[in-house]
Amino acid sequence: MNAAAVCKSGLSFEGTAGSGFRIPLGAAADVGGAEDGFRPMELMALGLAGCTAMDVISILRKKQQAVTAFEVRVEGERAVEHPKVFTRIVVEYRVRGHGIDPQAVDRAVTLSRDKYCPAQGMLAKVVPIEHRVVTEQDPPRD
Amino acid sequence: MNAAAVCKSGLSFEGTAGSGFRIPLGAAADVGGAEDGFRPMELMALGLAGCTAMDVISILRKKQQAVTAFEVRVEGERAVEHPKVFTRIVVEYRVRGHGIDPQAVDRAVTLSRDKYCPAQGMLAKVVPIEHRVVTEQDPPRD
Repeated sequence: MNAAAVCKSGLSFEGTAGSGFRIPLGAAADVGGAEDGFRPMELMALGLAGCTAMDVISILRKKQQAVTAFEVRVEGERAVEHPKVFTRIVVEYRVRGHGIDPQAVDRAVTLSRDKYCPAQGMLAKVVPIEHRVVTEQDPPRD
Repeated sequence: MNAAAVCKSGLSFEGTAGSGFRIPLGAAADVGGAEDGFRPMELMALGLAGCTAMDVISILRKKQQAVTAFEVRVEGERAVEHPKVFTRIVVEYRVRGHGIDPQAVDRAVTLSRDKYCPAQGMLAKVVPIEHRVVTEQDPPRD
């Protein structure tokens, strides 16, 4: 597993990873950046979102849940002083589908948190992570 | 600070963040993915690379170092068992320029590690992080 950040100019970098994808990395104007890419801590939050999202959707499909829309939102609060670590993270799972069983979603979220998700396996040791689940039911199918 | 992963199909997601940027997130074929985006743990590694890279290049410029090329590479080893957390991370700083002072680079790396970098401030508590510095000198300017 590898990744690299290559400086283009100022605080603007190109991020690459072993999978072959590329991404712009940048900083906010108030710290001298050009606002021209993902902030590094956004990538940490997005890694967490993607990591647990893949767990949960996989488990829901194994549980035969008819999911029609699914997303995971991550909000992180940060310390005011350096280093501006996350001090609290909220992970919200939004599941939509036909006859979704909220208990199945809760179990999937718990399995990701406690067993499968490496991002949570690391971050949960250093910052409180709160989980929220929002389920929406689609109209019954004919 | 917020981010979201929205499921497109299978294990393919679109990642978004508050800064407005978008990125494809995907999984490897051997876990049922379509290899069509960054792996979530690559984003964690890239967040770390970008975070410390921005610290170090900022400090080197303040120290009047004439940097002509700069990149940070991150390699992560992962546990075999779930959750497949990082078990060891190597961060390699590659600095090229005119008359680069290796001690100035070392001090910048240490400052990022100990004071400024939130990614390291969190991850260093749960996984050993090793630092390497490679400096290359450009030919003297006329």
